[in-house]
Amino acid sequence: MKVVMTGAAGFLGQKLIARILADPQLPSPQGPRAVTQLCLFDVVEPPIPAVSSAKSPAISTQVGDITRADDLTQLLGEQADVIVHLAAVVSSAAEADLDLGLRVNLDGTRTLLEVCRGLAQPPMVVFASSVAVYGGALPAVVTDNTALTPQSSYGAQKVMGEQLINDFSRRGLIDGRVLRLPTIAVRPGRPNAAASSFASSIIREPLQGETAVLPVPETLALNLLSPRAVIANMVHALGIPAADFGASRSVMLPGCCVAVSDMLAALERAGGPAARERVHAQPDAGIEAIVGGWPARFDTAKANALGFSADRDIDAIIAAFIEEDRIDAC
Amino acid sequence: MKVVMTGAAGFLGQKLIARILADPQLPSPQGPRAVTQLCLFDVVEPPIPAVSSAKSPAISTQVGDITRADDLTQLLGEQADVIVHLAAVVSSAAEADLDLGLRVNLDGTRTLLEVCRGLAQPPMVVFASSVAVYGGALPAVVTDNTALTPQSSYGAQKVMGEQLINDFSRRGLIDGRVLRLPTIAVRPGRPNAAASSFASSIIREPLQGETAVLPVPETLALNLLSPRAVIANMVHALGIPAADFGASRSVMLPGCCVAVSDMLAALERAGGPAARERVHAQPDAGIEAIVGGWPARFDTAKANALGFSADRDIDAIIAAFIEEDRIDAC
Repeated sequence: MKVVMTGAAGFLGQKLIARILADPQLPSPQGPRAVTQLCLFDVVEPPIPAVSSAKSPAISTQVGDITRADDLTQLLGEQADVIVHLAAVVSSAAEADLDLGLRVNLDGTRTLLEVCRGLAQPPMVVFASSVAVYGGALPAVVTDNTALTPQSSYGAQKVMGEQLINDFSRRGLIDGRVLRLPTIAVRPGRPNAAASSFASSIIREPLQGETAVLPVPETLALNLLSPRAVIANMVHALGIPAADFGASRSVMLPGCCVAVSDMLAALERAGGPAARERVHAQPDAGIEAIVGGWPARFDTAKANALGFSADRDIDAIIAAFIEEDRIDAC
Repeated sequence: MKVVMTGAAGFLGQKLIARILADPQLPSPQGPRAVTQLCLFDVVEPPIPAVSSAKSPAISTQVGDITRADDLTQLLGEQADVIVHLAAVVSSAAEADLDLGLRVNLDGTRTLLEVCRGLAQPPMVVFASSVAVYGGALPAVVTDNTALTPQSSYGAQKVMGEQLINDFSRRGLIDGRVLRLPTIAVRPGRPNAAASSFASSIIREPLQGETAVLPVPETLALNLLSPRAVIANMVHALGIPAADFGASRSVMLPGCCVAVSDMLAALERAGGPAARERVHAQPDAGIEAIVGGWPARFDTAKANALGFSADRDIDAIIAAFIEEDRIDAC
């Protein structure tokens, strides 16, 4: 089958490509299917991870603009079986530039769905949404029935994308699956401008021999999911019969609710006291205000019933980082 | 102050214009203000209701396309104090034509908000949303915290419009107020293709000497609000301080939860047994399936706290129709 991926140069895209190359079988509601074609799309040339496999699919890459119908028509061709739509302007950028966020996060998603209407068969579309759809006055435990009142442009744009995916699915134009991602940790790479950057930094940097800054109190709780578990859940989503989603294709993925103090204790278990000592408290009221407004406790009954799963615990999250992404200190 | 109205030719627009002409004072968070300019916009020439007033505002009309930024730039000029955005493709039309619904309900709202960014001051924007934003597996009583999982393209487009209004408000680009309207009854005019058309027909036609068809069981409950109460609530919305809305500008308006049997009893009280006998049961499983999926019971705590109000009861709803809209049988 033909799998198309937008945002393929991003870190989740790269991990999903590596997963497909390592094992070019993916679930479908009708049973496992072999990926024969993998079409990668991004604004920059998507790297192809060096993973060898006995039966590699044919890989093509395309550099283009997600808001240009012509680019997407070329990408999808006459038929696409599965589209994994990861292309997005991230939260800090969408907040800094409303037009850019609307253009990529709303118009990009809509253009992709419009182009899908021209295909021979309705494709399956997996859409990465975010915990940022939640906000405002939230209950102590967020459930599948909690209203979405996002407090960021990124969150608002993700809600709109979810509505498009749901409505196009209800009309039979696509077969959509919307996964709301928790805070992803431990991200590979370097610290970035995201308010949640510290959640990865306080594990990643100390385990690579570097120092990290903790801008929030140790009592603060976060809802975390490892990149490895995100990929496993995206793959799992492909095999679920559409009817099992009920009246909405949107699912909040399960995560681990972990206090920062628990993260630091797990860091010490993985890297010893030296690693723990590389984390330095440096309170930042701005970051605390943003991250403290995110919900940390979820009842993800729907995701659980559909077979999605979280990491076992924070130690498993750290172990996944060490196995997949740690760069050894020289 | 300058008041701009889109969808001004529609029946709610016409009633709001009549209200403003009868009393050209409107509330604002800073106290009552006189309407000096009233700018009416629609795809057809908006009629001007024949209401005389001591101090009529200057009225202008414009025929245009809500999705054309040029038309809206001309409409708003350099400044608009209040924009009442009623222009929309209704539910049955949006379901029949996805492109038309997206163009008017989503693109039209977005274009209006984009043009607002060019004004000298952020305007207040009142947006008419709908009970159609609710759907799917709903709790017995819908609350302000119930998730929106619309089961129509119209509902999905209204959710997206709400997100735009909320995000633009949060960013300080407008001062938005979103009113989710219950089923409006008794609508003036003739029956239409809407699934809820009977809710007005079974009162309006018999009180005008005509017969009406009842396609649903008498046990079915509806959440009703009179056009008079909708207008009163729209006017009320203008005076509420922005901060009182909290983390979301969206409010489900209160309505009367009324069983069809109660509507028929009230019809008989208002029009006698002869009126009641003009309603003929003619079950329609299709209409029952659609209308039966709408929530009828709401806890509108937020609207109540903000001072919005419903009609007293079904008799008051019928009395409002008789006073404002009944066309006497010849």
